[in-house]
Amino acid sequence: MQTLVWQNLTAVARRTALARPASGDAKQVRAAAQTIIDDVQRDGEPALLSLTARFDRALLTSLLVTDQEICAARAVLPASATAAIERAIGNVMRFHAATASAPIALEVEPGVHCERVLRPLQSVGLYVPAGSAPLPSSAIMLAVPATLAGCPQRIVCTPARADGTADPAVLVAASLAGATAIFKLGGVQAIAAMAYGIGPVPKVVKVFGPGNAWVTAAKQIVAADPAGAAIDMPAGPSEVLIIADETARADWVAADLLAQAEHDPLSQAVLLTDSAPLIDATRAALLTQVRSLSRQNVLRESVAAMRLILVPDLDTALRICEDYAPEHLIIETREPRRWLASITTAGSVFLGHHTPESIGDYCSGTNHVLPTYGYARAYSGLGLPDFQRRMTVQELTPAGLQSLGPIAVTLAHLEGLDAHARAVTIRADNDQRGTS
Amino acid sequence: MQTLVWQNLTAVARRTALARPASGDAKQVRAAAQTIIDDVQRDGEPALLSLTARFDRALLTSLLVTDQEICAARAVLPASATAAIERAIGNVMRFHAATASAPIALEVEPGVHCERVLRPLQSVGLYVPAGSAPLPSSAIMLAVPATLAGCPQRIVCTPARADGTADPAVLVAASLAGATAIFKLGGVQAIAAMAYGIGPVPKVVKVFGPGNAWVTAAKQIVAADPAGAAIDMPAGPSEVLIIADETARADWVAADLLAQAEHDPLSQAVLLTDSAPLIDATRAALLTQVRSLSRQNVLRESVAAMRLILVPDLDTALRICEDYAPEHLIIETREPRRWLASITTAGSVFLGHHTPESIGDYCSGTNHVLPTYGYARAYSGLGLPDFQRRMTVQELTPAGLQSLGPIAVTLAHLEGLDAHARAVTIRADNDQRGTS
Repeated sequence: MQTLVWQNLTAVARRTALARPASGDAKQVRAAAQTIIDDVQRDGEPALLSLTARFDRALLTSLLVTDQEICAARAVLPASATAAIERAIGNVMRFHAATASAPIALEVEPGVHCERVLRPLQSVGLYVPAGSAPLPSSAIMLAVPATLAGCPQRIVCTPARADGTADPAVLVAASLAGATAIFKLGGVQAIAAMAYGIGPVPKVVKVFGPGNAWVTAAKQIVAADPAGAAIDMPAGPSEVLIIADETARADWVAADLLAQAEHDPLSQAVLLTDSAPLIDATRAALLTQVRSLSRQNVLRESVAAMRLILVPDLDTALRICEDYAPEHLIIETREPRRWLASITTAGSVFLGHHTPESIGDYCSGTNHVLPTYGYARAYSGLGLPDFQRRMTVQELTPAGLQSLGPIAVTLAHLEGLDAHARAVTIRADNDQRGTS
Repeated sequence: MQTLVWQNLTAVARRTALARPASGDAKQVRAAAQTIIDDVQRDGEPALLSLTARFDRALLTSLLVTDQEICAARAVLPASATAAIERAIGNVMRFHAATASAPIALEVEPGVHCERVLRPLQSVGLYVPAGSAPLPSSAIMLAVPATLAGCPQRIVCTPARADGTADPAVLVAASLAGATAIFKLGGVQAIAAMAYGIGPVPKVVKVFGPGNAWVTAAKQIVAADPAGAAIDMPAGPSEVLIIADETARADWVAADLLAQAEHDPLSQAVLLTDSAPLIDATRAALLTQVRSLSRQNVLRESVAAMRLILVPDLDTALRICEDYAPEHLIIETREPRRWLASITTAGSVFLGHHTPESIGDYCSGTNHVLPTYGYARAYSGLGLPDFQRRMTVQELTPAGLQSLGPIAVTLAHLEGLDAHARAVTIRADNDQRGTS
């Protein structure tokens, strides 16, 4: 890990200190994803089965998870795990339900009625990866808002294991959270199957969920194809930025940094603090704690990339954070809430010493699908609105059109669009004759 | 135009009847856009000036529109035009303000506080094209929600005219609607300048607005680059679908179809009706009305592509419409509102005989930037939420963490993420020791 003093860094060194890892050979990844998408579109279900044999080493004859398989998963899962999944679903459901919007209707001018109504997306595809670990929590974060939004078709794809089953925790989480069909299908082939409707997998209008570089490339490819599907958001490696002062406990800060670091060798974990002793103590705690963790192969690289940065004051930390736009922001300071109003570019914010990121990853109720890689400058984390469409409606009375019509006519003429004007005048002229 | 009887069409003919026009040579357009983006990134402001000379035939020394130029535009614009712009802004402001969301806070479980707060995007780029016609209405539709959302930096780019000025109506509309800076810059070079911050044009985090195929390609390129900018939505040629019964007036229906058709040679205008006499009368009215319109070069192609389709009943019309997912849907039937609940995939809906699309294009208050090309299956029209970020916040009390922590620990272990579990247990263990 690197220990840096912000005030001693040149502008270039500051940029380097906050740089995200390069995204690898994007062209090659994209080409590989495109090849698989082409194969799936050309050969249909046989391609899905043979790709599953090749990448997941699972020999399947059917991709659909049967009710029997879901029952078997429930039987094999410890009761405590099922109970934890249910409590997490309850909290995610409660929080997302609270964010629901009501339809809006108003009379903008006399006789000019406008509305904004909400409609669920008709079919959504939810991808639950199982690369370095199966992620039942992602099944919850995707399926709960899809269910709450009322999307009629909620398709989950998750990779098969080599024995031909899927992870039981993922199956239980997905079915309890409201998936209407689950397929044992992973990677690029799962994204392609959902975007185009291949074999037993229905076509969806939008694909959601995290994934590795190939899955991300596949999502970008189908999103750029009008015959494909929309996607939730672009993705990069997960990341946390922690702002701490001398009231923070170094062993807790270290644990939070390591929780991020264990995700992926490219995971980013950054500490900004105005306390030099905290940096030293966090460094020591990191070196101690890392030894007892299991994912050493991941942590080797990500811990080396960690940055512990001493800043002159917390205002500077906030400015750096705003510029960095972290996926997760943990504020472990004396008065964490006083900074909230100034924060505009974080994915999700964790306030105070007793709010580790893990709690939001699993069960506080907020969604853990969040913008990474600086995308939090423009994108929001996943929420109920992503599973709905906003649709506007207008209805004018004859009097409303008489009154407002001339405005449209004037503007149409300014734009040289006389057919636009005519669509108004042909009605207004008739109505005037009718009333005269 | 084509007159079709739905019941007589094969499945293939039905698909053909509702097919969107092919998007042209996308690869070539994309390559041309990429070349310009590369030029702009390499050469900076001089490239912007020379591209403006080349494409807009305007020799500029400065791209920024000065206050003097805006005053001059106000002076040259007729008072009736300024008044129309102001009334349109008022209505768009009123409707969009009514759609504002409030922040949400709840205690999901005792001691587990979650919030969803809203933050304006810090800098937005609004592109107002002026290709076949300058579009002051687009300046209104983009700048009003950006202003309402509170985005601090609201940059407008619009092409220069050959004399070095910009369209006065666009300048007046943009400045009255709240643009903080306006640049005389169009096409791919405008999108690149805003996405990367080139010369006098500040970098923005998201680019909005309509445009031709090159502008659309440029938006897709900068959106795929993490160093670029997000974009509002993908775009295709504008389109209308009208559902009408025998209560509709053929001359009004014809005027509505032509209003769409005059946009672009590729514009799509489709009529679905259960009334054979209405089809005949609409056809006759179209042939009469088209003669007196000015944009004959556009209308020649788009009128030829029009489809008047006889359906057996309005339920069938609705099903076709749901599948087609039109940008604009006009319902000119006896009881237009009765169909609204079944409509899920339209961009914006116009109910009744006195609600021509033009009124929404300009001044009903709804936004006219809408998903085309079938994108309305997954995307919404532009609105206030597109200029804001949703950000989640959580704050746990020590008791909240004691209670909910074990759920996170259980789920972390299910996923094999022991550092996630440790970030919880290291706190809970300490707190338990503290209370015991």
